[in-house]
Amino acid sequence: MTRTTVPIVEEILSANDSLAGLNRRLLDEAGVLGINIMASPGAGKTSVILQTIEALKSDLQIGVIEGDTAAVTIDADKVMTAGMPAVQINTGGQCHLDAVMLAKALPSLPLEKLDLLIVENVGNLICPAAFTLGTHFNVVVASVPEGDDKPYKYPNIYRGINALILNKIDLLPYIDFDEAYFRQGIEILNPGVSYFPLSCKTGEGVAAWTGWLRDQRLPLDIRAADSVSTR
Amino acid sequence: MTRTTVPIVEEILSANDSLAGLNRRLLDEAGVLGINIMASPGAGKTSVILQTIEALKSDLQIGVIEGDTAAVTIDADKVMTAGMPAVQINTGGQCHLDAVMLAKALPSLPLEKLDLLIVENVGNLICPAAFTLGTHFNVVVASVPEGDDKPYKYPNIYRGINALILNKIDLLPYIDFDEAYFRQGIEILNPGVSYFPLSCKTGEGVAAWTGWLRDQRLPLDIRAADSVSTR
Repeated sequence: MTRTTVPIVEEILSANDSLAGLNRRLLDEAGVLGINIMASPGAGKTSVILQTIEALKSDLQIGVIEGDTAAVTIDADKVMTAGMPAVQINTGGQCHLDAVMLAKALPSLPLEKLDLLIVENVGNLICPAAFTLGTHFNVVVASVPEGDDKPYKYPNIYRGINALILNKIDLLPYIDFDEAYFRQGIEILNPGVSYFPLSCKTGEGVAAWTGWLRDQRLPLDIRAADSVSTR
Repeated sequence: MTRTTVPIVEEILSANDSLAGLNRRLLDEAGVLGINIMASPGAGKTSVILQTIEALKSDLQIGVIEGDTAAVTIDADKVMTAGMPAVQINTGGQCHLDAVMLAKALPSLPLEKLDLLIVENVGNLICPAAFTLGTHFNVVVASVPEGDDKPYKYPNIYRGINALILNKIDLLPYIDFDEAYFRQGIEILNPGVSYFPLSCKTGEGVAAWTGWLRDQRLPLDIRAADSVSTR
C-alpha cells in the first residue's frame, strides 16, 4: 500500500503547489498582501486577527478567510462583527487548508477593494505546514500555556514561517515557560525570524506586530507596480 | 484525483481497523488495559501521564508509548525518569499514530509484566480521531487556556472518547473560560462521558481521574478470564 500512496501524495503536493502559484498571482494582481496564520487549537489565532483588524482598519481594507473543520461560524462571526468581510471554509473534518480550498474561497471576497487578506488555517501544528496556499507570508501563533518545548517537538511548522507571534504573555507569571529555551529552539529552525511576544488580552506587544505587518505592504506595492510595468 | 484517492483512504482505514483488532487481542491476552491519550499540543498529556504513574505505580505496572513527530525524546525521558518502561514512536512528521505503528512498538514493551499501557498520541485534535489503535479506551486531555469553544470547533475527537480530562484548572482565575458552555458542547457530542477537571500543577482533581482509571482494570480482568476460559 505504501508504494501506491506515496506517488499520489507527491502528486497532490505538486498539484497544490501549482494552484498556490495561481492564488499568489491573483493576490499580486489585486495588490493584496496575503498572510496564512497557523497555530495549535486555542493559541489565539482569531484574537490576533481581531487585534490586527482593530489596529489597521483605519489604514487598510482587510478580508479574512476562516478555516474550520466543522460548520461552526464562531470565528467568522467575530470578524464580521469587527466590520470586515469574512468567508468561512468548512474543511469537512480535514486537518488543514490547501490551495484548492483557498482558490474556491477567493472569488467570494472583493479582492480589488482589499489591501490585506488574512487566512486563518485550521488549528493544527503539523499538517498545515505541508500545504502552501499561495499567500505571501506564513505566520505561526504560539502561546505561553502550550509550553516552551513546542519548537523541538513540532519543528516543521516553524521552519517555513516569516513571523512568529508568542501570544498570552500575560500568563507568564503563572506558568513555567523558559522564553530563552523557546527562542533557542526557534533560532535553530529559522534563524532571525521576526518575533512578536504579545498579549491579545492586555494589548501588550500588539503594536510591534501590526506595525511590522503594515510595513510589509510596501514591498508588495513595489512588486505589483513592477508586474504591471513589465506586462 | 479525488476519485483515485478516496478508495485508498478507505482501504487504509479498513486495514488500520483490522490491525487495531490484533493489537487489542495482544493486550487482552496479556491482561493489559490500554488507553490512548489525545490532545492539542501543550494541553498536558505528558504531565497527566506522569501524575498517573505517580498515583498508580504502587498498585500497577505501567508501560508508556510516546508518539512524537520528531526524534526528540523529551517525553520518553520524563517517563523513564519516573521509573517506568517507555518506547518512543517517531512518526517522521506524520500527524497521528496508527495501528501499524502501535503494532511495531508493542513488542518492545514487557507486556506480560504490565497492567496498564498508556499511549501518548501526537499532539493534534483532528487526525488521531480517525485512526483506532486497538486500545480499550480513548481519552482526550483538554486544557483551560485552549478555550471553552473547542468541542464546537473540533467535534470529531470528542465523539469517540471514554473520558475527558480538563487540565490546567489552576489557570481558571486568569482566563475567560465558561465551563458550562464547554461541558454543554461535550454533552451534545458524547452524553455522559466521564469528566475529570484537574490541575497537574497543583494536584487538584487528579485522584478522581486515577481512581476512575484504576477501577477500569476490574472489567478487563473479568474479560481476560472469560477469553481464557472460552478458548
